[in-house]
Amino acid sequence: MIDLYTASTFNGQRVSIMLEEIGLAYTVHQIDLSKGEQRKDSFLSLNPSARIPVLVDHDTESGNAFVLTQSTAILHYLAEKTQLLLPKSLQERARVYEWMNFHAIDLGSTLFSAFYLQRLIHSRQPQAAKQLSQRIHELYYFFDQQLAEQEFLAGSSYSIADITALPAVISQEKTLTEYVHLTRWLQQLKQRPAVQRGIAVPCNS
Amino acid sequence: MIDLYTASTFNGQRVSIMLEEIGLAYTVHQIDLSKGEQRKDSFLSLNPSARIPVLVDHDTESGNAFVLTQSTAILHYLAEKTQLLLPKSLQERARVYEWMNFHAIDLGSTLFSAFYLQRLIHSRQPQAAKQLSQRIHELYYFFDQQLAEQEFLAGSSYSIADITALPAVISQEKTLTEYVHLTRWLQQLKQRPAVQRGIAVPCNS
Repeated sequence: MIDLYTASTFNGQRVSIMLEEIGLAYTVHQIDLSKGEQRKDSFLSLNPSARIPVLVDHDTESGNAFVLTQSTAILHYLAEKTQLLLPKSLQERARVYEWMNFHAIDLGSTLFSAFYLQRLIHSRQPQAAKQLSQRIHELYYFFDQQLAEQEFLAGSSYSIADITALPAVISQEKTLTEYVHLTRWLQQLKQRPAVQRGIAVPCNS
Repeated sequence: MIDLYTASTFNGQRVSIMLEEIGLAYTVHQIDLSKGEQRKDSFLSLNPSARIPVLVDHDTESGNAFVLTQSTAILHYLAEKTQLLLPKSLQERARVYEWMNFHAIDLGSTLFSAFYLQRLIHSRQPQAAKQLSQRIHELYYFFDQQLAEQEFLAGSSYSIADITALPAVISQEKTLTEYVHLTRWLQQLKQRPAVQRGIAVPCNS
């Protein structure tokens, strides 16, 4: 009842981990970004801004397919739909939003800007990318401090805040070993079968 | 019952516009970033990562003050607390999250990276900042397309998605005149007294 258009990026992996965690069946449609498949008309009709992931939920009250973009919005939608991985109390939920956004906005986008400057533009800016990378390390320090006091990013419960942060942290694991609490959290989450299945999408699909 | 620690930045203005819109009384505490007040111990005890805005809500069920950072998380918390500016239906809410995150993550952070590269680091990178600026224009095109079809960013209702985007669009107004639908939306929202009051915080407080 769910179609997921995705690729092996942090944003894509967030959604496949979430779908594995909540146990909803979904069909994977791999979009090969290196071949420019995100710019084909069939994909642009789903997301005109040519980016993955896109979720299409056919299990709706109206019966009409619901098309949604933006990885963290998709996580939030699925959490509200299934009442999973999002706390019930107002304050605990707000804490989830805080850490989701800390990662998605401050860290994730700095990562993207570094990537963008280093890889995607004609006049490469490796020095600027390096400076952005240093900022990433400065920000992960605060995740480490939070995880010194809490089992999970937003408190005592596993939530969509953890899933938001996980793909990027996995990919940078070797550069983050100085952060012992972040590493503890990472090793704990990597043992979850749903995380192992989700992070491998779409390559193993 | 609410303390807002803020400065005249997009992130700060989002929250003061929100508080004006929902009509909750709040006390403004201006943090002078140019004087480094965000690195004073009194502020670091509220947000160790030294960034505004910080909301402190004293009107809680437990009676304990609730401290929250991250502008979009604060908007979301206040919307859930007051049941305002966030639609009731699952799909309409998800559409709000989508457009909030499109702005906060893709646009807002690209803006920040451009600012960061151009102003904050020792070896300035104006060319890289310019390239990020071009990306910002590419992304606003999709906001314009959405606003050609919808009155507000996430549909027919004014929401926290609009408030998320508004401060940055106001500041860039003169460079975005080619986007006629975005400009229509901007002029409409600028007429709201709550927006006019909120955007002026903390300077006129």
